[in-house]
Amino acid sequence: MSSTYGKIFKISTFGESHGAAIGAVVEGCPAGLDFDLEAIQYQLDRRKPGQSRITTQRKEGDVAEVLSGVFENKTTGTPIGLLIRNEDQRSKDYSHIADKFRPSHADFTYTTKYGVRDYRGGGRSSARETAARVAAGALAMQVLKTQGIEIYSYVSQVGNLKLDKSYKEVDLNRIDENAVRCPDPEVAQRMFDYIDEVRKAGDSVGGVITGVIKGVPAGWGEPVFDKLHAELGKAMLSINAVKGFEYGTGFEGASWLGSQHNDIYFKEGDKVRTQTNYSGGIQGGISNGEDIYFRVAFKPTATIMRDQTSINEAGEEVVVSGKGRHDPCVLPRAVPIVDAMSALVLVDFMLRARTSKLLFP
Amino acid sequence: MSSTYGKIFKISTFGESHGAAIGAVVEGCPAGLDFDLEAIQYQLDRRKPGQSRITTQRKEGDVAEVLSGVFENKTTGTPIGLLIRNEDQRSKDYSHIADKFRPSHADFTYTTKYGVRDYRGGGRSSARETAARVAAGALAMQVLKTQGIEIYSYVSQVGNLKLDKSYKEVDLNRIDENAVRCPDPEVAQRMFDYIDEVRKAGDSVGGVITGVIKGVPAGWGEPVFDKLHAELGKAMLSINAVKGFEYGTGFEGASWLGSQHNDIYFKEGDKVRTQTNYSGGIQGGISNGEDIYFRVAFKPTATIMRDQTSINEAGEEVVVSGKGRHDPCVLPRAVPIVDAMSALVLVDFMLRARTSKLLFP
Amino acid sequence: MSSTYGKIFKISTFGESHGAAIGAVVEGCPAGLDFDLEAIQYQLDRRKPGQSRITTQRKEGDVAEVLSGVFENKTTGTPIGLLIRNEDQRSKDYSHIADKFRPSHADFTYTTKYGVRDYRGGGRSSARETAARVAAGALAMQVLKTQGIEIYSYVSQVGNLKLDKSYKEVDLNRIDENAVRCPDPEVAQRMFDYIDEVRKAGDSVGGVITGVIKGVPAGWGEPVFDKLHAELGKAMLSINAVKGFEYGTGFEGASWLGSQHNDIYFKEGDKVRTQTNYSGGIQGGISNGEDIYFRVAFKPTATIMRDQTSINEAGEEVVVSGKGRHDPCVLPRAVPIVDAMSALVLVDFMLRARTSKLLFP
Amino acid sequence: MSSTYGKIFKISTFGESHGAAIGAVVEGCPAGLDFDLEAIQYQLDRRKPGQSRITTQRKEGDVAEVLSGVFENKTTGTPIGLLIRNEDQRSKDYSHIADKFRPSHADFTYTTKYGVRDYRGGGRSSARETAARVAAGALAMQVLKTQGIEIYSYVSQVGNLKLDKSYKEVDLNRIDENAVRCPDPEVAQRMFDYIDEVRKAGDSVGGVITGVIKGVPAGWGEPVFDKLHAELGKAMLSINAVKGFEYGTGFEGASWLGSQHNDIYFKEGDKVRTQTNYSGGIQGGISNGEDIYFRVAFKPTATIMRDQTSINEAGEEVVVSGKGRHDPCVLPRAVPIVDAMSALVLVDFMLRARTSKLLFP
Repeated sequence: MSSTYGKIFKISTFGESHGAAIGAVVEGCPAGLDFDLEAIQYQLDRRKPGQSRITTQRKEGDVAEVLSGVFENKTTGTPIGLLIRNEDQRSKDYSHIADKFRPSHADFTYTTKYGVRDYRGGGRSSARETAARVAAGALAMQVLKTQGIEIYSYVSQVGNLKLDKSYKEVDLNRIDENAVRCPDPEVAQRMFDYIDEVRKAGDSVGGVITGVIKGVPAGWGEPVFDKLHAELGKAMLSINAVKGFEYGTGFEGASWLGSQHNDIYFKEGDKVRTQTNYSGGIQGGISNGEDIYFRVAFKPTATIMRDQTSINEAGEEVVVSGKGRHDPCVLPRAVPIVDAMSALVLVDFMLRARTSKLLFP
Repeated sequence: MSSTYGKIFKISTFGESHGAAIGAVVEGCPAGLDFDLEAIQYQLDRRKPGQSRITTQRKEGDVAEVLSGVFENKTTGTPIGLLIRNEDQRSKDYSHIADKFRPSHADFTYTTKYGVRDYRGGGRSSARETAARVAAGALAMQVLKTQGIEIYSYVSQVGNLKLDKSYKEVDLNRIDENAVRCPDPEVAQRMFDYIDEVRKAGDSVGGVITGVIKGVPAGWGEPVFDKLHAELGKAMLSINAVKGFEYGTGFEGASWLGSQHNDIYFKEGDKVRTQTNYSGGIQGGISNGEDIYFRVAFKPTATIMRDQTSINEAGEEVVVSGKGRHDPCVLPRAVPIVDAMSALVLVDFMLRARTSKLLFP
Repeated sequence: MSSTYGKIFKISTFGESHGAAIGAVVEGCPAGLDFDLEAIQYQLDRRKPGQSRITTQRKEGDVAEVLSGVFENKTTGTPIGLLIRNEDQRSKDYSHIADKFRPSHADFTYTTKYGVRDYRGGGRSSARETAARVAAGALAMQVLKTQGIEIYSYVSQVGNLKLDKSYKEVDLNRIDENAVRCPDPEVAQRMFDYIDEVRKAGDSVGGVITGVIKGVPAGWGEPVFDKLHAELGKAMLSINAVKGFEYGTGFEGASWLGSQHNDIYFKEGDKVRTQTNYSGGIQGGISNGEDIYFRVAFKPTATIMRDQTSINEAGEEVVVSGKGRHDPCVLPRAVPIVDAMSALVLVDFMLRARTSKLLFP
Repeated sequence: MSSTYGKIFKISTFGESHGAAIGAVVEGCPAGLDFDLEAIQYQLDRRKPGQSRITTQRKEGDVAEVLSGVFENKTTGTPIGLLIRNEDQRSKDYSHIADKFRPSHADFTYTTKYGVRDYRGGGRSSARETAARVAAGALAMQVLKTQGIEIYSYVSQVGNLKLDKSYKEVDLNRIDENAVRCPDPEVAQRMFDYIDEVRKAGDSVGGVITGVIKGVPAGWGEPVFDKLHAELGKAMLSINAVKGFEYGTGFEGASWLGSQHNDIYFKEGDKVRTQTNYSGGIQGGISNGEDIYFRVAFKPTATIMRDQTSINEAGEEVVVSGKGRHDPCVLPRAVPIVDAMSALVLVDFMLRARTSKLLFP
């Protein structure tokens, strides 16, 4: 009941870190889209392990195979099966923690919930599952691209190193120019060095990703429970290691006065605009045509290369020693995941928007 | 497609600020619960307008009528209809803004999405809708109470006035002792004075509510998309004026190292505990038995008692003057709404948890 | 989890036979529809008790009140709350069966499922719930009318009395001209007399309703699980006392050869037609533009005015004597319910059809 | 929005007749089940082509691969990915009908709905999709087996050849003893000969399958829209070529009197029983503990080995000649599909039943 996302453009993901494969079934992708497998692979490559020395050294080709739903390079409106075989499973790396609960991991909670647990690489709780989201999200991006929508995200904080610029002050086309995925090269270098230092110390560190979505027309989103920002928040909070979400002025705006915070409307040609965009492009849960922007907080990776005390299933105190291959900082590889979730949220609202008026379009 | 929340314990709300009534249909409430109408009314009274001079002076009895689903004071397992008549609708107060888009309100986005708009008091976009959530949430609380679960929330920040104590350092039983709903009387008084000052200035101010949930057993929540904190986040972000959500260490934790942040397990009697609870009671999207705590950021109320520039439906520049009856700070009345949403999220996971194992319980 | 129908145009019903009220919340009704309350009342009047001596003598005004979602006679896109107060509840009529399981009623199964049961008039299991469906269905009809769709159903069998004409051989505009709702006046009279005779004998009788839907464009419906006829079947089977559903040639067609049964296509002007319409207007779960027609079997009403043996909650043998006010034959009043369910199925597919192609319309 | 079935035990299927693969993702299978891959393969073998000369000669191994959700032979509670590669795709067989609408096939309706169409073997509209259901259904059967539930179905009519015995008069353990899957050997032989004769004539024929489910405890199912028989009906009607569904006395019971039709309760040991079971094991949408039985009508296969007139996409009259490999009568291979759908409906209600009472079990 929980590996499915979306109401109309709906994805169901499956797969464990060290199982045979992971994948997604995408239902409700509109028919007639020019299908671009390379664009899917491009996003998978942005997420895949082993891109630099500050990411995990697990080697996965992460090659997506399309099983259905595409005919003569067009989507047919039927479910699109996407399959990614797991390749570099060193499950033996995990036998030492088979009955141990790793600190701040999902080992204990899964065992309690399900009674059993696939302990190899965290099983289903591993961020490896997000490869399926990235593949499905890349497809969503192709749909959104036909509507002129552009999706960006970048690393804006690592530990205490913060990029002190708004998204308007950086070049969003330079995000992929460095291994950290921070569009400011100088700050990116400092972040890289810091992550590398943390890595050498066998430790890990958290950070913040900023997301930006441009080109969303006014009128997407829903009132009440499924507000556009509520779905964005849920989508981001569903990514492994995420601890917080804010959009527009966010927590900062909580200390402002209304007279400062209100966005004043004006007309720019045919378009209704706001002078400021403190609302983050969303009012009453529905897009207003301005840029949507938000921030996502990630905790430091739970797996560290140090000995930690814990307990095992029998309740005995044990030592968990850091083994396996892990990211000292998940943020660089989380950027395409944030992008994918943005796309999945928006494409669903795009299709839902077609049903809100009697006369459409 | 968006006025419904929950998978098993499911609520559908309806109603506009100045329509005949608002209400909720609650589906999936388990049969055999001792139904307590007074407990529902108690929560509605906490939310209702006119409680002090720092809230709106609209006078609503907000009396809940039960239409179905209860027989001889027990829930029967069938849908529970809850109805609240609107009483004090001064719709004339709104005729002056019938075709104007109030700054940072949902007027423009609703008009774009639906083509038409009930402009009276914001229609469906009004926080008046949350009375239906509070009624349904109070019912959810009754179910959760049978499991020993306690739900709290309180105002921890108004403007720049912050309560510099963790939830463990305050008395959660004193929340309702003052009009602000901050459990520290001294800080509460300063917040009250500040809100009153802002009110007199015709302005508004935002703030932060802290939520605490005690007694949730380990094993509630779902992996992947419907993580417990992701649903909590969505639920909170769906409340009017909310701009951010974080749980556990939240944004603060993004700057920590893994070696600092990891929660070390130990056994306390029969119970698995963690030494610290930076995880906020949730690991891998599933509760671990520790307290769940989170923070919710609210922007300042969009309606202020000052003239503001805007445009009308024809695109002409107009002046929007502040009229009507509004809260200068929504937070005191938002506390029971946060409580209600916590309850609605948890009760659904409580019932979902019954389906995760072949052998249950 | 089961009082809701529809994916986009979604209704949630509530209410018991002898509770305060019944009603429905309609979510997803497109904005901008001219709302016609009289058309809703017209359908409720077709369903309401006491229309002739062959229906129950319970007296219910069945007046629908609109609580939300309509402003200045237009739907606004927000949930439409529909409320019908119960008036003529003679709950005392039921005290004698409070702990008895009436034969072929839902008393035993509800008690087993829920542990408790509102025994007054069958509680939630009463067909009184269908008034809420009829109100919501009448709204769906208004949406469908804008697309030129016409919905009909009529009584084609009572006991062994069968109308031996296809739907093309009767005048669908004469359905309401008699109390039985059979469009052939002569057959209708014989059916009326037979029902009246059964009624006098304290017995009940079943029958068949034929449904016809005209004007559905090709391309509505979904492949695989949510086929148009599968949803129609579910909708009809969800009506109280229904035991079977068939469309097109139905069970009769099971004995045919493919060479007889296949519908040959031809072009009529711009329109693709079939020479025969044995498919009942649906191929592969999707409408083909021909008339949709189907048959729905109803069992005889379980309540009869005779003494029957049964058991009570303690397992003791008891006598259930026929009391209360009941229909000797539910079919005349079931006609508007079949119409309502047809409308609810179709309006949902109408909106879903808007999402199947990238370029729409 | 339509390749998914179930609320808690939920399957999503994908795949086309001549694509790379078909499969299903099963979400919500309870953890801790002993997983039996052979039992899945056994059901797939019952459905697979080429079993005798009265079924299609397409050769498919139909070997199921498990991609996820199982660890050390136990289900883990996470999604179970099931994959079946297509092997014997003679897509060239279909090039001659690439732009033609085959009579009574889904070619025209898919083209209208989606704008594009995978014409190879009917694409998604092919009954090949049901292999994925059979695999998932076999898993559902494993869950149900732990509750003592037995699922049967058999061919009870082919053309006009009817098995004139009730399900109680045949040996349900002999269903698979002949190629027709009719448990009466003598009738089976006559059916076989008739199908073979029809096959030689290049024609096709329909029939009826009877389903029986034993061991369902009282209290499963839901009131109102999701009645047990309504879901069963939808599930059966969603199978390719199905035109009708009835349960209990079905259409026949429509001509009875209430005094004949009512099932009288009595106590047998601890169990509540009914003297007759005209209700088909379901009252008010909820199981009563008696056998559930129903009948499903199938039309003759649309593909016949004869020339038929039709039109093409351009609207021109064309001749469609029968090619490809097809079943002259789908019923023998549809038996495991009916079984699978029964299992999928029931397993979902089994899990839903856990949420209906406050105190469970």
